[in-house]
Amino acid sequence: MRGSGMTDVVSIREVGPRDGLQNEDPVPAEAKVQLLDALSGTGVRRIEAVSFVHPKAIPQMADADEVWAAATKAPGVRYSALVPNSRGTQRALAAGFTEIEVVVSASDTHNRKNLNRSTAESLDDITALIQAGHKAGASVEVIVATSFGCPYEGDVDPRRVAGIVERVLADGADRVAFGDTTGMATPRRVRELLDVVPREAPILLHFHNTRGTGLANILTALELGVREFDASIGGLGGCPYAPGASGNVATEEVVHMLHDMGVDTGIDLDALLEAAALAERIVGRTLPSGVLRAGPRTRLTPVH
Amino acid sequence: MRGSGMTDVVSIREVGPRDGLQNEDPVPAEAKVQLLDALSGTGVRRIEAVSFVHPKAIPQMADADEVWAAATKAPGVRYSALVPNSRGTQRALAAGFTEIEVVVSASDTHNRKNLNRSTAESLDDITALIQAGHKAGASVEVIVATSFGCPYEGDVDPRRVAGIVERVLADGADRVAFGDTTGMATPRRVRELLDVVPREAPILLHFHNTRGTGLANILTALELGVREFDASIGGLGGCPYAPGASGNVATEEVVHMLHDMGVDTGIDLDALLEAAALAERIVGRTLPSGVLRAGPRTRLTPVH
Repeated sequence: MRGSGMTDVVSIREVGPRDGLQNEDPVPAEAKVQLLDALSGTGVRRIEAVSFVHPKAIPQMADADEVWAAATKAPGVRYSALVPNSRGTQRALAAGFTEIEVVVSASDTHNRKNLNRSTAESLDDITALIQAGHKAGASVEVIVATSFGCPYEGDVDPRRVAGIVERVLADGADRVAFGDTTGMATPRRVRELLDVVPREAPILLHFHNTRGTGLANILTALELGVREFDASIGGLGGCPYAPGASGNVATEEVVHMLHDMGVDTGIDLDALLEAAALAERIVGRTLPSGVLRAGPRTRLTPVH
Repeated sequence: MRGSGMTDVVSIREVGPRDGLQNEDPVPAEAKVQLLDALSGTGVRRIEAVSFVHPKAIPQMADADEVWAAATKAPGVRYSALVPNSRGTQRALAAGFTEIEVVVSASDTHNRKNLNRSTAESLDDITALIQAGHKAGASVEVIVATSFGCPYEGDVDPRRVAGIVERVLADGADRVAFGDTTGMATPRRVRELLDVVPREAPILLHFHNTRGTGLANILTALELGVREFDASIGGLGGCPYAPGASGNVATEEVVHMLHDMGVDTGIDLDALLEAAALAERIVGRTLPSGVLRAGPRTRLTPVH
């Protein structure tokens, strides 16, 4: 559901613990719990906590049950889990999640690479997955990967993405997220996609900052009424297609810009910067966040 | 002079050879010439080539005369030089420059730190400098540093910046550039400043990407009719206030976004990426440009 023009409230979903850490070298379960707990104390209202994927495919998330059991569930925070299939859905539901996310790629080639089936086949799987989730009382979000371009196929026709939105909403999906999987989104591509997606569709945008356009994309989407965005603490989560490049847009960069615009996110930027510093210590590498490096624009230099 | 709304032509001034290299460890004169020549072959129409500053204050530019004498002057490219005072102006004019730039800070504290005098005193110096430049047939641009915030004073009143614009234009300045000296500009601050600057004023915006807002700021300025921007190849030029942080917005990130929007810059992005790779080799460190790292969004991954 989009608003009109600019806004004073935006909902940020923190994806560092799942999407971020899944794209870093594996870290111990206790570090994940520590990061989750730090994030739960920042005022952020939504956190993508873990994924229930096969441990051989994604060793980074092999301890999802252990991490989730140990994490503090803060009141006022909604936690979600990513699932690849019905087995993962059952694990997420058994662990107590009431918000689950499932991925399909708008690009057939990317979907085959990722899930070994066509987009159409995945959409049929998702129909059943939505029903299973709803039956258990959980909401189900469908993440449409490569929404702004595919690293194999190039541009993805926005009407193809809009068709997927229509299909999954008809199947009962509670929300559709547009994934900028390899950072191909630009203000133009954001505008072209939003132009063909119905304004009443419940959507969330997930941008990468691979080519520097992360905040410009968010600004464009805000002007077009989008009110829900993913972001990753510190910019956690590299870009598998470009070693050394940044992946997810950094939560503190998004919040820093939004707060400066007078937009309320419910988040305490100082607490967020502490969580970003923790994330950096956990992965043991310099994260790509400029606001973490330089501090917010309001942090002044003493005059000597 | 601002246009109305979006545009199909934008003028980029490449500042890597001067602003970029001045904020890196010193490199040999021949490397500077090599970079200048590479940039002159990219189709960019304006290059800030060198500065004529005291070699003790800024050793990086001690060889400005030698570099400029050896550089190829490409037809169709306008070259400019930064000068700090009348001595620098004479050197620039003697070297054959017909476009010179001089800096004043909107913030008194920053101006005193930088130039050891108040903003008002610097403006008087600039009056004389403009006259000297014009007498020699050169155009003079005034760069207003800390236009979007001062690292010592914090927010700078846009009306104070607008007052400086009015003053230097009355004194005959040919253009006013707004410097985002320590990366404090945000879309909101860009809008607030442009709101109080007359639309007919000849302006150019110079953004840093210190806090991730570089392209978002440019997008906002484009919507408000600005058509001239500075950018630095590879993002060359660190941020002296935040070690490890990025400084100038990277030329190839700006051009990549603009071309995707259908905006003409006259620049060949492939040639620009080669120049960025050269800049990276010259300074011997990884530059912060995402487009240099990941390639343009149109560069596809082969399917295996």
